[in-house]
Amino acid sequence: MINQLEDTICAISTAPGIGGIAVIRISGKQAIEYVSQCWQGADINAMKSHTAHLGRIADKDGSILDEVVLTLFRNPHSFTGEDVIEIACHGSTWIQQQIINTLIDCGCRPATGGEFTRRAYTNGRMDLSQAEAVADLIASSSRASHRIAFNQMRGAFSRELSSLREKLLEFVSLIELELDFTEEDVEFADRSRLLDLANVIKSTVDSLAGSFAVGNAIKNGIPCAIVGETNAGKSTLLNHLLRDDRALVSDIHGTTRDVIEDTITIGGTLFRFIDTAGIRKTDDTIESMGIERTFKKLDEARLVLWVIDANSDFADIEELGNRILELVNEKTLIAIVNKIDTLDTDRRKDIESFMTGLIGEKGTTAYISAKNGVGTDTLERILTKSLVLADTDDANQVIVTNARHYEALLHASEAITRAIDGLSAGISGDFVSQDIRECMHYLGEITGEISTDEILGSIFSRFCIGK
Amino acid sequence: MINQLEDTICAISTAPGIGGIAVIRISGKQAIEYVSQCWQGADINAMKSHTAHLGRIADKDGSILDEVVLTLFRNPHSFTGEDVIEIACHGSTWIQQQIINTLIDCGCRPATGGEFTRRAYTNGRMDLSQAEAVADLIASSSRASHRIAFNQMRGAFSRELSSLREKLLEFVSLIELELDFTEEDVEFADRSRLLDLANVIKSTVDSLAGSFAVGNAIKNGIPCAIVGETNAGKSTLLNHLLRDDRALVSDIHGTTRDVIEDTITIGGTLFRFIDTAGIRKTDDTIESMGIERTFKKLDEARLVLWVIDANSDFADIEELGNRILELVNEKTLIAIVNKIDTLDTDRRKDIESFMTGLIGEKGTTAYISAKNGVGTDTLERILTKSLVLADTDDANQVIVTNARHYEALLHASEAITRAIDGLSAGISGDFVSQDIRECMHYLGEITGEISTDEILGSIFSRFCIGK
Repeated sequence: MINQLEDTICAISTAPGIGGIAVIRISGKQAIEYVSQCWQGADINAMKSHTAHLGRIADKDGSILDEVVLTLFRNPHSFTGEDVIEIACHGSTWIQQQIINTLIDCGCRPATGGEFTRRAYTNGRMDLSQAEAVADLIASSSRASHRIAFNQMRGAFSRELSSLREKLLEFVSLIELELDFTEEDVEFADRSRLLDLANVIKSTVDSLAGSFAVGNAIKNGIPCAIVGETNAGKSTLLNHLLRDDRALVSDIHGTTRDVIEDTITIGGTLFRFIDTAGIRKTDDTIESMGIERTFKKLDEARLVLWVIDANSDFADIEELGNRILELVNEKTLIAIVNKIDTLDTDRRKDIESFMTGLIGEKGTTAYISAKNGVGTDTLERILTKSLVLADTDDANQVIVTNARHYEALLHASEAITRAIDGLSAGISGDFVSQDIRECMHYLGEITGEISTDEILGSIFSRFCIGK
Repeated sequence: MINQLEDTICAISTAPGIGGIAVIRISGKQAIEYVSQCWQGADINAMKSHTAHLGRIADKDGSILDEVVLTLFRNPHSFTGEDVIEIACHGSTWIQQQIINTLIDCGCRPATGGEFTRRAYTNGRMDLSQAEAVADLIASSSRASHRIAFNQMRGAFSRELSSLREKLLEFVSLIELELDFTEEDVEFADRSRLLDLANVIKSTVDSLAGSFAVGNAIKNGIPCAIVGETNAGKSTLLNHLLRDDRALVSDIHGTTRDVIEDTITIGGTLFRFIDTAGIRKTDDTIESMGIERTFKKLDEARLVLWVIDANSDFADIEELGNRILELVNEKTLIAIVNKIDTLDTDRRKDIESFMTGLIGEKGTTAYISAKNGVGTDTLERILTKSLVLADTDDANQVIVTNARHYEALLHASEAITRAIDGLSAGISGDFVSQDIRECMHYLGEITGEISTDEILGSIFSRFCIGK
């Protein structure tokens, strides 16, 4: 394994490709020594920290590669905690690559993904959950996911965990003190107070773990299924929403399956639309298999958008509607009556009262013409106001978005549950103490107080190079 | 028209997309005032120029968007000559966009393409040819194009032009002095010395204009045609060269036609491969139409790579070879005998002596197996050493790469030629003076001493936003 902290590393830190400028970052003990070899300008050794200097970078043959601005951040007042030099060069990919090659000639090693952040963690500039938040922050594409990542980076989650670990430590100390005095049969710890404390801890751990469902939805987009008969206007609606996209449109590849999904940020919230096959009618009856197949794919959806052709037969709408209502469970249903521009006043009134009867309080109904963009503004408001995420408006609430943290919280919950059971059953303190220590271990894994090279490797490999 | 210098402008200066970090640049009189409104950190007014500060950017509602590093460059010691602030933020596209939106809320205007460089030009930080070189530098993708752009940015071309304009000014002064004393019939200017000077100027202008053929090839890639019969292995060769690409592979869209061409940097030189249809044999005779059509497309090629199947009939090779040699004119021919791995020793000897007889000194012959990569290293060396560009190795030579400059030089050459003719024919000084002034005008257009909003607009619209 490469020596993580002895090497001086370099990488292009800005987005790949051609830009006005690009920034190359160098970090390590020899940063000043190595960069000095290819730098033509003021003496780097004599520079104050946090100062920027115009100069030139020359390759090993002495040909000038570029005029650049060099900024020095002396340890420990840098991102990594080491000496860091940032070189802002012209954004030609050729120049960027040549400067990197020159830095390598001077003794630097190309950084691996996330290696700068890993050094920040190793040098105690941030804990592991904060380091992971850096990657989440860079990937964030909505107000909500950004806010969670930013809070996590600034240490909100870490503080919560550290307070839990403190409580657990207090707990375990009392129990282990008893064990030292076991001959004397004293009881320092009041069992019922311990039980109360354990229950508080369990409830906090469970509530953090419980926030993962919301957190994951925020980070990867609220899973949102558009269902309906094939001619109801599903694609037109999706296209309309995509066209009106005010922030970002991107494809994300599902990690566990090969479906490409569209994500859209509407009103600061990221929605992830799950493609479902249209439900087809055969011999004037709705093909049940079709609905079930569709709904099977909807297990993960939190929102169901049911698109209805306003001209459909009421009996058909009712039949499909009842099936959907049956299967919707805890998901939020939005019934969208499309093609309302084709209706006369009477039919419009009829369908409104029919839909009110069918859906009632079990969902929200919107009336739109996806083709002409009528009512879609209202629909977008309904989407963003759907209550699922209302509780994330509290800027300081800690929400877990990371599957690794979620796993660790589940393990911690199991351990504390065993401790609670043990306390209730009055079993020996050393068993209880072992469970508490296990709970602490899992919480420590999140912040990186407990870590292995393997865990660190897998975490930082998710990062882009240069961060 | 927007007020170019009163507004304070902002833009993302790094490449678009997600990166470890991104840099947002702000320039203008109110840069410090506007950024102070969304900045949480040390007082920007009190900061020294060229210092970097950790702090936070908050949006207009006070929510913190990111932790950033802010660097201040006070006028006139900045790229634009104005107060410039650079904000290095986390490279999420969402954060980048939110910070730009916030800066706009604070009073900044989004910069148009190249507006920072245009301000540098307007504020006298660089002349127009240097400003244009900034764009070329950013687009440069080979050692040669980079070197030319860098020299031009550093003022080599400007100095050459300014020396020409000085000579012309001296010239025109002497002639115009005579005109002032026209009554007295004095002759301050020695006509034969003037003629010598005019010829020197014309020769310099013509040599600069002449360098455009090479300069253009360097900037856009040396146009390089691969010709040959359809089964000779053209595509395999091209793919092999592309696979071995050590620097950059990109598609450039021809500006005047709809062909997409592949460019490859080999040994620091950019080659642009022009796709030609394979030449087909019909009834055992080479289809003449095919060759001509192919060669019609090759007008712009400087290098012709003729790919030959080593197993072809010698008579066929000779027939096609003679046609190619006829049409090759001043282009450099490289005959590439492919599939040599399929030959026995005798055939190998035969084809080598046959090719020597056919090509001789009229080109270079290479023996390769594109499929197995045999001999392709040698071929790449032949390509990079092809003599066309040998004269660009002089790092200080001025080479014109810009079509606008080339046009202006042609006009300048016409004007000085008219002046020479006038001087030779002994026509009146005021006509000669007019031609000299016209010559000066065209040279002044290159450096921007003579410019119009229209010219400036068209130049800077080529720039990326943020530079």
